[in-house]
Amino acid sequence: MACCGGCLCCHCCCNEGDIRTPEELTILGETREDDDDEILPRKDYESLDYDRCINEPFLEVLEGLDNKKARKYEAIKWILVFAIGVSTGLTGLFVDFFVRLFTQLKFSVVGQSVEDCSENGCLALSLLELLALNMMFIFISSVLVLIEPVAAGSGIPEIKSYLNGVKIPGIVRLRTFICKVTGVLFAVAGGLFVGKEGPMIHSGAIVGAGLPQFQSITFQKIRFHFPYFRSDRDKRDFVSAGAAAGVAAAFGAPIGGTLFSLEEGSSFWNQALTWKVLFCSMSATFTLNFFRSGINFNKWGSFQLPGLLNFGEFKCTDGDKSCHLWTAVDLAFFVLMGVAGGLLGALFNCINKRLAKYRMRNVHPKARFIRVLESLLVCMVTTLVIFMASVTLGECRDLVSTINNNTSTQGSVSEEVNSTIRRFFCYNNTYNDMATLFFNPQEVAIHQLFHQNATFSPVTLSLFFVLYFFLSCWTYGVSVPSGLFVPSLLCGASLGRLVANVLKINFHMQIYSGTFALIGAAAFLGGVVRMTISLTVILIESTNEITYGLPIMITLMVAKWTGDFFNQGIYDIHIHLKGVPLLEWETEVEMDKLTASDIMEPNLTYVYPHTRIQSLVSILRTTVYHAFPVVTENRDNEKEFMKGNILISNNIKFKKTSVLTRAGEQRRRCQSMKSYPSSELRNVCDEQVVVEPAEEGQDMLQQMLERRHVPYPNLYPDQSPSEEWTMEERFRPLTFHGLILRSQLVNLLIRGVCYAENQSSASQPRLSHSEMTEDYPRFPDIHDLDLALLNPRMIVDVTPYMNPCPNTVSPNTRVSQVFNLFRTMGLRHLPVVNAVGEIVGIITRHNLTHEFLVAKLRQHYITI
Amino acid sequence: MACCGGCLCCHCCCNEGDIRTPEELTILGETREDDDDEILPRKDYESLDYDRCINEPFLEVLEGLDNKKARKYEAIKWILVFAIGVSTGLTGLFVDFFVRLFTQLKFSVVGQSVEDCSENGCLALSLLELLALNMMFIFISSVLVLIEPVAAGSGIPEIKSYLNGVKIPGIVRLRTFICKVTGVLFAVAGGLFVGKEGPMIHSGAIVGAGLPQFQSITFQKIRFHFPYFRSDRDKRDFVSAGAAAGVAAAFGAPIGGTLFSLEEGSSFWNQALTWKVLFCSMSATFTLNFFRSGINFNKWGSFQLPGLLNFGEFKCTDGDKSCHLWTAVDLAFFVLMGVAGGLLGALFNCINKRLAKYRMRNVHPKARFIRVLESLLVCMVTTLVIFMASVTLGECRDLVSTINNNTSTQGSVSEEVNSTIRRFFCYNNTYNDMATLFFNPQEVAIHQLFHQNATFSPVTLSLFFVLYFFLSCWTYGVSVPSGLFVPSLLCGASLGRLVANVLKINFHMQIYSGTFALIGAAAFLGGVVRMTISLTVILIESTNEITYGLPIMITLMVAKWTGDFFNQGIYDIHIHLKGVPLLEWETEVEMDKLTASDIMEPNLTYVYPHTRIQSLVSILRTTVYHAFPVVTENRDNEKEFMKGNILISNNIKFKKTSVLTRAGEQRRRCQSMKSYPSSELRNVCDEQVVVEPAEEGQDMLQQMLERRHVPYPNLYPDQSPSEEWTMEERFRPLTFHGLILRSQLVNLLIRGVCYAENQSSASQPRLSHSEMTEDYPRFPDIHDLDLALLNPRMIVDVTPYMNPCPNTVSPNTRVSQVFNLFRTMGLRHLPVVNAVGEIVGIITRHNLTHEFLVAKLRQHYITI
Repeated sequence: MACCGGCLCCHCCCNEGDIRTPEELTILGETREDDDDEILPRKDYESLDYDRCINEPFLEVLEGLDNKKARKYEAIKWILVFAIGVSTGLTGLFVDFFVRLFTQLKFSVVGQSVEDCSENGCLALSLLELLALNMMFIFISSVLVLIEPVAAGSGIPEIKSYLNGVKIPGIVRLRTFICKVTGVLFAVAGGLFVGKEGPMIHSGAIVGAGLPQFQSITFQKIRFHFPYFRSDRDKRDFVSAGAAAGVAAAFGAPIGGTLFSLEEGSSFWNQALTWKVLFCSMSATFTLNFFRSGINFNKWGSFQLPGLLNFGEFKCTDGDKSCHLWTAVDLAFFVLMGVAGGLLGALFNCINKRLAKYRMRNVHPKARFIRVLESLLVCMVTTLVIFMASVTLGECRDLVSTINNNTSTQGSVSEEVNSTIRRFFCYNNTYNDMATLFFNPQEVAIHQLFHQNATFSPVTLSLFFVLYFFLSCWTYGVSVPSGLFVPSLLCGASLGRLVANVLKINFHMQIYSGTFALIGAAAFLGGVVRMTISLTVILIESTNEITYGLPIMITLMVAKWTGDFFNQGIYDIHIHLKGVPLLEWETEVEMDKLTASDIMEPNLTYVYPHTRIQSLVSILRTTVYHAFPVVTENRDNEKEFMKGNILISNNIKFKKTSVLTRAGEQRRRCQSMKSYPSSELRNVCDEQVVVEPAEEGQDMLQQMLERRHVPYPNLYPDQSPSEEWTMEERFRPLTFHGLILRSQLVNLLIRGVCYAENQSSASQPRLSHSEMTEDYPRFPDIHDLDLALLNPRMIVDVTPYMNPCPNTVSPNTRVSQVFNLFRTMGLRHLPVVNAVGEIVGIITRHNLTHEFLVAKLRQHYITI
Repeated sequence: MACCGGCLCCHCCCNEGDIRTPEELTILGETREDDDDEILPRKDYESLDYDRCINEPFLEVLEGLDNKKARKYEAIKWILVFAIGVSTGLTGLFVDFFVRLFTQLKFSVVGQSVEDCSENGCLALSLLELLALNMMFIFISSVLVLIEPVAAGSGIPEIKSYLNGVKIPGIVRLRTFICKVTGVLFAVAGGLFVGKEGPMIHSGAIVGAGLPQFQSITFQKIRFHFPYFRSDRDKRDFVSAGAAAGVAAAFGAPIGGTLFSLEEGSSFWNQALTWKVLFCSMSATFTLNFFRSGINFNKWGSFQLPGLLNFGEFKCTDGDKSCHLWTAVDLAFFVLMGVAGGLLGALFNCINKRLAKYRMRNVHPKARFIRVLESLLVCMVTTLVIFMASVTLGECRDLVSTINNNTSTQGSVSEEVNSTIRRFFCYNNTYNDMATLFFNPQEVAIHQLFHQNATFSPVTLSLFFVLYFFLSCWTYGVSVPSGLFVPSLLCGASLGRLVANVLKINFHMQIYSGTFALIGAAAFLGGVVRMTISLTVILIESTNEITYGLPIMITLMVAKWTGDFFNQGIYDIHIHLKGVPLLEWETEVEMDKLTASDIMEPNLTYVYPHTRIQSLVSILRTTVYHAFPVVTENRDNEKEFMKGNILISNNIKFKKTSVLTRAGEQRRRCQSMKSYPSSELRNVCDEQVVVEPAEEGQDMLQQMLERRHVPYPNLYPDQSPSEEWTMEERFRPLTFHGLILRSQLVNLLIRGVCYAENQSSASQPRLSHSEMTEDYPRFPDIHDLDLALLNPRMIVDVTPYMNPCPNTVSPNTRVSQVFNLFRTMGLRHLPVVNAVGEIVGIITRHNLTHEFLVAKLRQHYITI
């Protein structure tokens, strides 16, 4: 009988597993019918745990802790965030320096060649030079991505997922860092329509994750003794800081960076953490600023170049009193531009989504070098377009603008802007407008659109927009590190400038072209990425002009709302395509029609407070769950145990052993099924099921029968239960005592934490907190365990190591409350416990994804 | 026996009560011995509830809800936050306009008189004019505060408390708004050393709280039918938005405002809310900006004056290439200035704290007009000091600076600055430096210190600082609406300018004086208020210069750390003096030595799912608690009830009535004690205690005895229990089913929600969600209830109206986890429930205040 209890456990499954219950398959089936290409969250992503596990080893540490040590710990944190900031700043500097170097080299060589050739017609030669250089750069970049595939793309979807609480393998490794940083450098230098801002954010996040660990998985030799911050919780804090520093370095926007990491990552507002994140961002900005001012302008100690990307100074000429950056009337145009940006952004995302799906189906399954070929193809087409457009499609425009009152020079800004124009075949104080935009680094082109007083022809701007739109859409997703910010800004800016041109020339309005270009850029970028608060602040900080706050915000708001009408933001699309189980901000109101019991996973794999090693190994080998509830079964025997969750372990053990002899016979009957370790595929629980004396039996049965009315339909699997099972076994109550993680169990097994049957559990060796966390973040696998070293009959007392007080919810809690608790507290497992302390299910991230909830809601509607 | 069960309840007390248990008194006693003037959190402040109560009326609303309605609801929210922003902006405009009007009037009259009198020696007359005007203004302001005392001070401590979750009576009422806005206008116009920024924030918060309610308690006639947002949760969101809008209007800092409300108010990061708050801030900034530009400059449609307070433009002259706003070398000085600012701020706070205590002891208990007299005294002294210092202590300085390269004019900025100098007795292109600082509005003085190229003499600056320091310290706390930002900034700026003078003249350093003045201002302000993130951003936005980010942040950080070494920030001091039970950001690490069971309130007043009206009235009249756990007592009879918290009410009722007949005899015995409503003072619970049949009794007793080992020492009151009590009654388990609020119970009684004994509970009238929330925020009191209308024998079924799934914690949960859950989820009551679903205590805000935890920790150390 006891053995059959074990059999029941075989079919219990806890959470995060890839074994799909029939019910789930139905859900999947339904969804598939509705939307053929819907991608459901994959179950093989692990979650991060932001909750603290206060178990006995931790309490030991706590006992030794005083305020002095706490202050030291705090000081280390400050030093680390400073180091992260500085390192991220230096990374930005490195990228910027080499991009600048290579780009200058390239453009000076080719530009010179073009200027020379325009007379003697050797343009083909110039084109070949350019092609060769670009393709060489892109080849290097693409090969680097082959080494570490997660280094492809902008990295923002991955960081967003990480901060949301999903562990994506390899995303914060040193190897990824090296490939990403070097790769983006060559990708940008190779003239692709990619930005370096997204990869900067990813790099910052890796620095944040890696630096406080003082060890590396890529280079095993890097390993210092530094036993702090060995938890997902601390790591996630540092990753927040690093990502913020990345934004800060990329845009010179420390506040925007802080808000970025809050918006993407935080579920709760932690003042102390936010203050550190802001400090980290500031450090990054000013490190970069300090060195760039020194290196580029030779003005060491001054701070003139806030970020890698900056928009220059928007200002009216001093003498011109009638000039305004913007007026209330312009706001109406900004709203319209917001709508346009939203629409175009949605189109961009739609095309890119289809492309990404195509790539997933047709490119990724093939040999890896195909990806390199694709990159080279994109590079070739881009180079050809740039070259041909510059040479053939440009118009010669007067350098001194034709519009009346803008003729006054704008001092240093204009000088700087004018020094970067391209004259390709244009003489006599004119310049080639198309070449100026295409044949320059992207940042320079943005500056041109924002600050060039002279005009660009409408035809040039339209052509530029169309070419750029499609090429950058094609490029995002190619296997090189590639950001999306700068291409989007440039696209949008050309559109904004076009609007400004039309308004100025056709309607003779008094407007400031730069503002329109900026708003256009914001609208398009907003339409593509759909970020809100942080993007507003980043753009305000990049312009260094607080008065742009309102127009930027309104534009972004309108662009987001318009775009959301059609599809998601580009990052969310890519997250979705990867099947990451991302949690949204909040559930829809309708979801409150569901309760925790509707969405929980009712099939549980559990362990007992005291379990035989053979059972533990079996459970660990046959399931993939990351946490197991610690439960007891018999309500009479566990009275002492349950009181206030105090674990009077010895009592239980002694009672159990006394019962064991009686249960001996049943055990022997099941021996064949359980012979260890051959029957690994069955999930065999501990056989120490307490057999009740006969006189209590009848009472028990009555109670159990009453329990049938429990309103959770799927408490037990749908498969017909074994005929041998008695009612008792089918409906036995499991009192919940705590949660233990897979990693903790494996650790206990590896370190031989167990005691023999005839000893007291007090004789079990004790592990310290640092021993428990030593292997973070890569805990050993159960399959690496040498079973020969273990005595399967020994018993492990898991109670000192489990989390005795995790957050729990009642089965009747509404989904919005469950979601709120789960997301806000950054949980990984949320046990569902009924009013008398019995565990009835468990909720994990997968039970709260939008797709899962929608499917459950549909089921709910069908039922009623 | 059953009656004695009732007696037990008499001594149970739930939470938030002012009845102190002996244990608590011990704690209080201990604390008093240690620190005589320590102020403990008062227990009469109510908490706000941020948690949602999803009960049956709510579910009914939910059933009728679809996405369209949800979208409409969302749209209303957006419109409301916009309206709040605009209203706050207009409030700022109103204050600014009249302050400007009155101040100009005053200074032109008196200034003219001084200029005239400097020849014919009638200065006394000028002084009298000034005195009369100032004292008149202050008198008005002070009388307004008499009408509504909470309008005194800056209002930031009150708003901080509110956002933290403490309801302070009258703080968001329309009357307070009127008194505050008008009061601050006259206080500033009256020449006191007060700012209008704090009161602006308070006004914004009131607008936020009041506007979405569409009704007013002050003016009963204002009452529209608008049944939305009738909960603490929504109100708190709107108050956040309003407070942010207040900051935004005051400083022209929309991002800073958003961060302010996050820093002071948020416990969790809600993207949708933050986005609305930012929009609200932007609306406020640009409303104010739009109208001010129109009214003051007659440039409608342009946006030139971001906030009430702005710092002007910091910039080097165009021609001067060697000028930097700051360099890396300056950072060292900034750190030193941060230390100085922290020290001086701590001194300021220390003096102000003593003063505030003195006022609490000696001024407040006396007649109210004494406060008016104090205000007038402060006004008189201030006026005298201003006048005497201006006339006698100033030095005549050359208008064109004596320092070599600063002689070049700075265009419009300098013109503006120079137009506000005062010449008092100085001729030939010189000006009186002391008069320029003192005899101007404070904003102008700040501008002078930041942007005046000419120098101020070190003596003048030192004298100015000392006078200002002590006078503003005296002023803050006088019963007028008074902000602290501007006086602190001015104080600090004079100090910073002094440092700049010394460095420039004595050490011949190439520095930008304005930066030093700014950093000085930041250092002193930071030392006084100890705000971090939001203050950094506010100052950056006020200067409109992103490159000041690092120095401002470092200065504020150093100032805060230095100051925190000595005492708290000024707002925290005043919150503390008011005895507000504020929750900090997090608990100290040491507190984790305590568990939930150590800090919870073990004495509970509870209600049953079905309770007689007479018991309810009795409980409500004899206790002051705001929530009551809904519990059942007998484990056998409540089996159906407990399963997954499903309340099968009818079953319970029927079982109960069958038991009631048996319990009849006991009831009659206790009749004299319970005769209703004469014995109101005893807290009599429902007498429907189920009497067990004799054969089960023995078993029960055994179980109860086992329960004695429950490790919660104070589960029952310390008073010796009645001798009549059986063991059963002493240790009976209470299974927890939900929480019901006092307001809900009173509402049920008033609306006659009950059923007769011989009916089913289904016949009980049902209340809709809007009926439940109609009276928000001022629910009727139990003492207003006409008892004659109620039949005391009727039964109320509270189960549809209680919160069936509140968050709960296990008794063994560590304090940090409890605190985190409580603060993050914005709870008001947190029941402590053991592993078998029995309630063992309750945790409220008062159990988590720093003072309470410290006392408990001390107790803990004594015990071990």
